[in-house]
Amino acid sequence: MLNKEITIKEIYQKINDDNYQDLDNKEITLKGFVRNNRSLGQVGFMSVNDGSCFLNAQAVYKGDDALLSSIKLGSTVIVKGKIHLTIGGYQPFEIDSSNIEVISQTEESFPLQKKKTSYDFLRTIPTIRMKSNTFNAVFRVRSVLSYYIHKYFHDNGYIWVHTPILTANDCEGEGQTFQVVADEKHPEEYFNKDNVHLTVSGQLHVEPFALTYGKVYTFGPTFRAEKSNTTRHAAEFWMIEPELAWCDMNQIMDVEEDFLKYIVKNTREECYQDFKFFYERVDKDLEKRLDDFVNKPFKRLKYEEAIEILKEASKTHHFDNSDIKFGLDLASEHERYLTEVHFKCPVFLTDYPKEIKAFYMKANDDNKTVRGVDLLVPQIGELCGGSEREDNYEKLLARMNELHMNIPAYEWYLDLRKNGSAPHSGFGLGFERMVMLVTGMTNIRDTLPYPRTYKDMLY
Amino acid sequence: MLNKEITIKEIYQKINDDNYQDLDNKEITLKGFVRNNRSLGQVGFMSVNDGSCFLNAQAVYKGDDALLSSIKLGSTVIVKGKIHLTIGGYQPFEIDSSNIEVISQTEESFPLQKKKTSYDFLRTIPTIRMKSNTFNAVFRVRSVLSYYIHKYFHDNGYIWVHTPILTANDCEGEGQTFQVVADEKHPEEYFNKDNVHLTVSGQLHVEPFALTYGKVYTFGPTFRAEKSNTTRHAAEFWMIEPELAWCDMNQIMDVEEDFLKYIVKNTREECYQDFKFFYERVDKDLEKRLDDFVNKPFKRLKYEEAIEILKEASKTHHFDNSDIKFGLDLASEHERYLTEVHFKCPVFLTDYPKEIKAFYMKANDDNKTVRGVDLLVPQIGELCGGSEREDNYEKLLARMNELHMNIPAYEWYLDLRKNGSAPHSGFGLGFERMVMLVTGMTNIRDTLPYPRTYKDMLY
Repeated sequence: MLNKEITIKEIYQKINDDNYQDLDNKEITLKGFVRNNRSLGQVGFMSVNDGSCFLNAQAVYKGDDALLSSIKLGSTVIVKGKIHLTIGGYQPFEIDSSNIEVISQTEESFPLQKKKTSYDFLRTIPTIRMKSNTFNAVFRVRSVLSYYIHKYFHDNGYIWVHTPILTANDCEGEGQTFQVVADEKHPEEYFNKDNVHLTVSGQLHVEPFALTYGKVYTFGPTFRAEKSNTTRHAAEFWMIEPELAWCDMNQIMDVEEDFLKYIVKNTREECYQDFKFFYERVDKDLEKRLDDFVNKPFKRLKYEEAIEILKEASKTHHFDNSDIKFGLDLASEHERYLTEVHFKCPVFLTDYPKEIKAFYMKANDDNKTVRGVDLLVPQIGELCGGSEREDNYEKLLARMNELHMNIPAYEWYLDLRKNGSAPHSGFGLGFERMVMLVTGMTNIRDTLPYPRTYKDMLY
Repeated sequence: MLNKEITIKEIYQKINDDNYQDLDNKEITLKGFVRNNRSLGQVGFMSVNDGSCFLNAQAVYKGDDALLSSIKLGSTVIVKGKIHLTIGGYQPFEIDSSNIEVISQTEESFPLQKKKTSYDFLRTIPTIRMKSNTFNAVFRVRSVLSYYIHKYFHDNGYIWVHTPILTANDCEGEGQTFQVVADEKHPEEYFNKDNVHLTVSGQLHVEPFALTYGKVYTFGPTFRAEKSNTTRHAAEFWMIEPELAWCDMNQIMDVEEDFLKYIVKNTREECYQDFKFFYERVDKDLEKRLDDFVNKPFKRLKYEEAIEILKEASKTHHFDNSDIKFGLDLASEHERYLTEVHFKCPVFLTDYPKEIKAFYMKANDDNKTVRGVDLLVPQIGELCGGSEREDNYEKLLARMNELHMNIPAYEWYLDLRKNGSAPHSGFGLGFERMVMLVTGMTNIRDTLPYPRTYKDMLY
């Protein structure tokens, strides 16, 4: 490490490890922003956050210092002083400051104040909201969660493939996309293509890599131009798409469950201060929900069985759409009933009717269902969608013709089934929904540093 | 790990660790693609790669088996057999196969053949080229390099910020961008903005996060719509942009050097098989260049001193542009002379004339130069560009007015200097240039899974 100054995170680490004897009276320099400041006449208390972790250090100063006692939330300071251990107290240490240098004071108009402000308001100040407790924790957890995603795949022998953002293919064969042009007057000129758009999924592009490296994944931004305004959709979001050769639908569920439990477990351990805040202040049920998520097995059942459960339930439970029969594309209300009310745990639903799933899913022998699998979780609904892929050239071609797809555009994809094919499966995880799941935040906009949604883009 | 089958990587690991006794006669099942196959009458040898590492396992079979001896490169197979150790031989083990099941044969027309094919040709088959030795190694190294980038920042307390791809701001205040529209007829309708484009840099968006968390970085795709056709430019590429509060120009050079050496060192260690191939087959000077990169200190000097060196050199060395004087925006020929001929090592150039650098760089007291710093490296030229940022509101505003910038659009950025500002610095690293540096590949297109360049986009 280049930085030789001790951080607040390191101080807490030593205290938690019962290895704090050498901290007492240690001279330290702390650089950060003010989270709280109050003067009680003789003595003043300034809480400073150095960015290393969720918790602050409280600097004690002479309360009659006019400048210091006037310093407001968000101002930046350099504190020099000695650590004074107060193990067992309200906070385990404070800093007896010998000098506090004020680097930049916030103005009267600084929009973040001590009183509780709404998430809606904070969303209008994306360059400041991460100084509030909630968002400070959300974006730290977002980062640490990302890290453990990469670490899981790396440690398990996956290759990260940076699939392209600009593409002329459309994975789902449907769905609104954003068009991309270098020059409005000659839109097709730059790439010699007349329909370049932002990717909706890296799956098709990553499949050939799975057939070479065995285990691969993508982790990058994806885009949907739907004009929808819900708490679960954004126009720009990040997606993780693992793809495995020599893997069938049952095995991909094993991978999903192992992966999801790993990232939640490790992120909770590393960000224990942030999670304590979420449990106490954001969602009282979150801790139990995450305990269950990590410790209990996920339920697995077929779509057809789910339909029976929902039919039965509709006799006593109100669904907006109660016309429940085989072929129904489950709405959020149905998915959430299954995972929240009926099973009370994450549920893998498998073997969907082919009509409601994408063209590339492997057909079952009944020629009615495909080896698709969605993961439904409490509070979120659909978290992952995946499948075993159709690896038979003739069957895939027939299905694409059935759907009147533009075959020449997908020739390269079809060809993968001719030359050195293998069974393979994969799934997609919407990263922001995962952040919602672990933090308890209920609006996708509150998990994105600069959310881009229909009619809404700041900076 | 869910996968209980032993991989080729694990076999080599055990052999390298001198921990291979229990391997001999071990029954294994290997699933992968054929790299090479030849029958010598009685006995046949099939090299199979399972994707876990660069090296293959050679399966020995009865050479008079008509099907097996006809299997071509790229076909997929499942090999069952026993490991036979041949430590000290040409390869340290082979597999006495009891059964080889052919899953999918490649056709006569399969474009990858045993004879050496050109990178240019391979670029036309992006779904297949990673089965060739060179690209198999390049994309593995690309993945592992990415991982160590995240690991370095995570282990050193940085927060990864997913800055937006869609933006209405333009970091450099210049440069061609790709426009994005949801609906051609009403281009401004979706976001209520009339100029939404793909990001050219996440720097401006990440600065407020640095002022909160202290140390942050971005790692994501960026876009330039320049109509240039060089071996070092792509329309879509990935960039890493660390940003640190409480950090000046000299400290950011310390961070850069420490970071770059760490990622090169760790990637070389993990991918030692791939690097052996690069050293022997791609670039004979690569090994020494990387040794120097990791072990020797980078040179640091001022732009002004570099101009003096180049002036002197121009008396004996030919430059296309030999009009060398203070204010010159150094061309690649000048940068490469400094790093390859004069210093023969990576060089940080600092304190550039303000006219040739971006508006946000901190002015020196001479009011002539700014605290910008570029890192020049042999074979590549400019690898990173960075600076200390102007943190004085009045100075930044004056400079932006001098450049006739659209001040209202940048008000949010200017405001960061008013409310809780702090000195801060950062740099940008073009990820594909870093891949070129470590692999010895000389065309950026050969470091990207699906390169997007002017007039060129496949799938």
